Amino acid sequence: MGKKIILDCDPGYDDAVALFLAHGHPDIELLAVTTVVGNQTLEKVTRNALSVARIIKMENVTFAAGCTQPLVKPIHTAAEIHGESGLDGPVLPEPHLRLSLRHAVDVIIETILSQPKDSVTLVPTGGLTNIAMALRKEPKIIDRVREVVLMGGAIRGGNATPCAEFNIYIDPEAAEIVFNAGWKVTMIGLDVTHKALATLPIRNQIRQIDTGPARFLSDLLGFFSEKYQKVHGFDAPAIHDPCAVAYVINPDLFTVQQAPISIETQGKHTTGMTVVDLRHRPPATCQTYVATDINSEAFWALIVEAMQHIGEGDAEACKIY
Amino acid sequence: MGKKIILDCDPGYDDAVALFLAHGHPDIELLAVTTVVGNQTLEKVTRNALSVARIIKMENVTFAAGCTQPLVKPIHTAAEIHGESGLDGPVLPEPHLRLSLRHAVDVIIETILSQPKDSVTLVPTGGLTNIAMALRKEPKIIDRVREVVLMGGAIRGGNATPCAEFNIYIDPEAAEIVFNAGWKVTMIGLDVTHKALATLPIRNQIRQIDTGPARFLSDLLGFFSEKYQKVHGFDAPAIHDPCAVAYVINPDLFTVQQAPISIETQGKHTTGMTVVDLRHRPPATCQTYVATDINSEAFWALIVEAMQHIGEGDAEACKIY
Amino acid sequence: MGKKIILDCDPGYDDAVALFLAHGHPDIELLAVTTVVGNQTLEKVTRNALSVARIIKMENVTFAAGCTQPLVKPIHTAAEIHGESGLDGPVLPEPHLRLSLRHAVDVIIETILSQPKDSVTLVPTGGLTNIAMALRKEPKIIDRVREVVLMGGAIRGGNATPCAEFNIYIDPEAAEIVFNAGWKVTMIGLDVTHKALATLPIRNQIRQIDTGPARFLSDLLGFFSEKYQKVHGFDAPAIHDPCAVAYVINPDLFTVQQAPISIETQGKHTTGMTVVDLRHRPPATCQTYVATDINSEAFWALIVEAMQHIGEGDAEACKIY
Amino acid sequence: MGKKIILDCDPGYDDAVALFLAHGHPDIELLAVTTVVGNQTLEKVTRNALSVARIIKMENVTFAAGCTQPLVKPIHTAAEIHGESGLDGPVLPEPHLRLSLRHAVDVIIETILSQPKDSVTLVPTGGLTNIAMALRKEPKIIDRVREVVLMGGAIRGGNATPCAEFNIYIDPEAAEIVFNAGWKVTMIGLDVTHKALATLPIRNQIRQIDTGPARFLSDLLGFFSEKYQKVHGFDAPAIHDPCAVAYVINPDLFTVQQAPISIETQGKHTTGMTVVDLRHRPPATCQTYVATDINSEAFWALIVEAMQHIGEGDAEACKIY
Repeated sequence: MGKKIILDCDPGYDDAVALFLAHGHPDIELLAVTTVVGNQTLEKVTRNALSVARIIKMENVTFAAGCTQPLVKPIHTAAEIHGESGLDGPVLPEPHLRLSLRHAVDVIIETILSQPKDSVTLVPTGGLTNIAMALRKEPKIIDRVREVVLMGGAIRGGNATPCAEFNIYIDPEAAEIVFNAGWKVTMIGLDVTHKALATLPIRNQIRQIDTGPARFLSDLLGFFSEKYQKVHGFDAPAIHDPCAVAYVINPDLFTVQQAPISIETQGKHTTGMTVVDLRHRPPATCQTYVATDINSEAFWALIVEAMQHIGEGDAEACKIY
Repeated sequence: MGKKIILDCDPGYDDAVALFLAHGHPDIELLAVTTVVGNQTLEKVTRNALSVARIIKMENVTFAAGCTQPLVKPIHTAAEIHGESGLDGPVLPEPHLRLSLRHAVDVIIETILSQPKDSVTLVPTGGLTNIAMALRKEPKIIDRVREVVLMGGAIRGGNATPCAEFNIYIDPEAAEIVFNAGWKVTMIGLDVTHKALATLPIRNQIRQIDTGPARFLSDLLGFFSEKYQKVHGFDAPAIHDPCAVAYVINPDLFTVQQAPISIETQGKHTTGMTVVDLRHRPPATCQTYVATDINSEAFWALIVEAMQHIGEGDAEACKIY
Repeated sequence: MGKKIILDCDPGYDDAVALFLAHGHPDIELLAVTTVVGNQTLEKVTRNALSVARIIKMENVTFAAGCTQPLVKPIHTAAEIHGESGLDGPVLPEPHLRLSLRHAVDVIIETILSQPKDSVTLVPTGGLTNIAMALRKEPKIIDRVREVVLMGGAIRGGNATPCAEFNIYIDPEAAEIVFNAGWKVTMIGLDVTHKALATLPIRNQIRQIDTGPARFLSDLLGFFSEKYQKVHGFDAPAIHDPCAVAYVINPDLFTVQQAPISIETQGKHTTGMTVVDLRHRPPATCQTYVATDINSEAFWALIVEAMQHIGEGDAEACKIY
Repeated sequence: MGKKIILDCDPGYDDAVALFLAHGHPDIELLAVTTVVGNQTLEKVTRNALSVARIIKMENVTFAAGCTQPLVKPIHTAAEIHGESGLDGPVLPEPHLRLSLRHAVDVIIETILSQPKDSVTLVPTGGLTNIAMALRKEPKIIDRVREVVLMGGAIRGGNATPCAEFNIYIDPEAAEIVFNAGWKVTMIGLDVTHKALATLPIRNQIRQIDTGPARFLSDLLGFFSEKYQKVHGFDAPAIHDPCAVAYVINPDLFTVQQAPISIETQGKHTTGMTVVDLRHRPPATCQTYVATDINSEAFWALIVEAMQHIGEGDAEACKIY
């Protein structure tokens, strides 16, 4: 049986890859996909999630939309990276799946409470608004969750500011809540995701799988690298989000260290920073962990494996690729 | 027909009086009572609300419990004023009403959405956690609510700190969300509630109504004044919370001014302050209003009127008073 | 013998009146006038101080220029109130007095150290940059000064922001240093200075003294009231700064209360606020005092008395008035 | 002719080495040594500076004491690293040199103004209080200084907190002033100083020079490594401060990059952080530079060269080593 996860995301190019990995890899049982404002508005990222789901023929997975705005801060999207649609480039098919009528926050809570204790891993790959809301609405989930494995933060540097990563930066108060809730949090930050680069050889390898979804994915990574080139000046984009899913599949691909992590919410220049204290041995009670390295070759092998499992996807949705 | 309100409270002595007024006064239709951590823990204030409800024989009102913790800050109760139980002093009866299985946040959202547009007034008399959560979970309520009339804040001074009132101080991030949501907010702060004093003549007048609930209320105000004497050094306690209900019943009892209000969340000495700008004529788009004066005689007349309507209450619950 | 003071100022209309009072009143021995950036740039306020000094024929007083910029914040002047020159309106004479070659910070330090212990009162009527610099450069002055009587701050409200007074707002870090230095500080804030209004009868009374300096002062107050009318909407301007000098002359004109005062330096909406805690009896060690009321009639009598002592001033400088 | 510097320091083990290098190396003309509270109180670090000066027979150098307290923050020393005396371990000789009667802030200002424009480099190796005070007292020095080369800050990590280096942390407001003054600032931070380690072979090489000062230095580094072992868990201590002097002697030993640097003064977890933005090409007007690498072998060669120039030092002071 696969490991049960809820993927809370804001597609976004790399979120789309996370969806592919979470759906395609046999070691993951994807219980629900929830969406949150982030790379683009909630409406856009939700539609992107559903379109991508159709390409890979996802069925029997709950999709639920969540918060339209960060907890306290105003909305700040990443249109310069992910485009006006949040997934600029490929023509996306009309979704087939229907959104749940329930709110993402409730889907998160109810899914966790309805599954055995310690069986569900929360995998947020966007801002942490939905997760923080779920925590405040139903604190019982703290003891029920297996762990939280999130893409976000950085030991060093940042992409939204010199020292803040985008997912934390857009909702630092939510991050403060999530990192301090008392559950186990594993942070997969820029320090490792910047080693998960979709280089040209990788993109070619994926294209050679030669299924509809693989061609779509290859195109998608191509569009992403064009944006990256424009914004960051190099053309192998970092595929951040699926790293968190990969960690759930096989933690051994990562070097991880127990360390206190504080979230800065009040700095003039540092708001959204994840302050990781690596100076001393952490207290035994420390519940936060940080990834410091990744086996990126093995990471890409997981993606390829997932694409092979996915196979042809939805024929009509894929025929244009 | 009465004005429809949802009372979001944390009883607390003065919240109990607000419950009496909201239930007893014929001009109010009380749709729901929701509770929130504040004067005491959620568990305690919820039990207090239900006990008080029995005394005045409330029926057919939804009671729902909400958040156990402020949005971002840790819990900070007011045990020095309201005691260990949140309502120290009177022996409280076993509740008869059952709590809703729904969360207060959902009760707030669903009640607002199920009623006609602009018909429901939200009346928060505790920290603003539930209201902020409801706003973030379902922003549609912003356009549906008639207005928010809250007890909290101050133009001048404070009670939790030299410049912050307790309800705002305990959850300033929630307050920032609520005051800036774009709906109409009327702030009933210390500037007026400190004129709604339960003096000895007032307490005697209430006792003379000579019903069970009136004797209970008179006792309650007596216990409150003892606490006030100890903490603040004067024995006529300010009956803050029912002032917000009174404003809904009859706004003409108050002097109210349109003014920009900002919530301080980052100060070293000022966090939780409601910064009211009275220096200039506010912009026409300003949606925040602040009460600057109250007709306290007329206010107490409303309380007496409500007590008379309430009548004998639950005989068994009241026989000890 | 008069009480020895150093007047640290940024003229500015009301600073000019403070100069008149400090020079003219027989109970004050003015040891030095130091200038600091504030109402206008250092260059302008220094020239204004020297011009005004000539009008009233000041001699044998050290004038020294101080800091051109607040401690940490960038420069923020009050041109909308005091005009481009800092004293817009009257034609100012060429100064006769020469500036000291020493820096104001050194003049403050050396003057205090060269006078008997507890004999010198520091009277800042501008931002507190010079005083904070002197404190950090030579902490010995703390035990030598009699006290600090400053115009600045407010118990309630503000003029630079809804809750910050201009002198504190422009250099809050300096204020934090000065209020916490351990010496006695008496704060003469907006709460009292807004009762020291130069009404038309007052201005007429001063004009009737019929000396050159009195006519100049009357004109000056007239220009000030025009500005006030434009900015604040009422035409009797508050003559803030001489209130601090008046307090030194006769503390009995004021009601003063011992109270802890904290300076907010980090708020989003409250930076520059003087948080005065009037809720409890202050600790015996509390070294900060705040004026809560003023006998404004007696205050204006001091001004009139000073103008009479000043007499005709410099004939040439005054002939145009 | 050597490069003219003013060394502003707080000895401290590594400050002592900086003094040796600044005095001993023929390419440096040491105009003045000024002291500032930091590793220990002003009194202690000043005595340490004078004692060390005697060991190496410094003469004709102005020594002046500066600020006893950081600009705004309270005093925070580094006794756990440098000991109660600030130079625990070696027996220090009675100083021979006399302190200047002038304040360090004035010595800095007057030295800069009395030398040719662009000839003097300021080398702070402690907190930046004195430098910030000099800037505010006499802004003319901004255009007169050649550049500021300071030991402090870090691109990544910290030693006082997870993300703040000690010299910046103890006076962040001063750092904000100094980094933003508009003069050229080169930051020699932990990123390079952590490569300037006094390993055992290095210490032995210095001992073999076999002069009194060399034996003293070798001992000193031995004591320092014991402290380092205890606090940081490794025994080759980073010799931070002389790196800044080495940069003045030969910038080619360092890799340096132009980059915007912001100082965090308001964070909950990040105060004292030097936020270096390496993400983009800096604007041409950027006046701040950061060292990213050091040739540590060549660095130690400078130290050895300096020790050889110093020769036997003060015979009596050295006879105990």
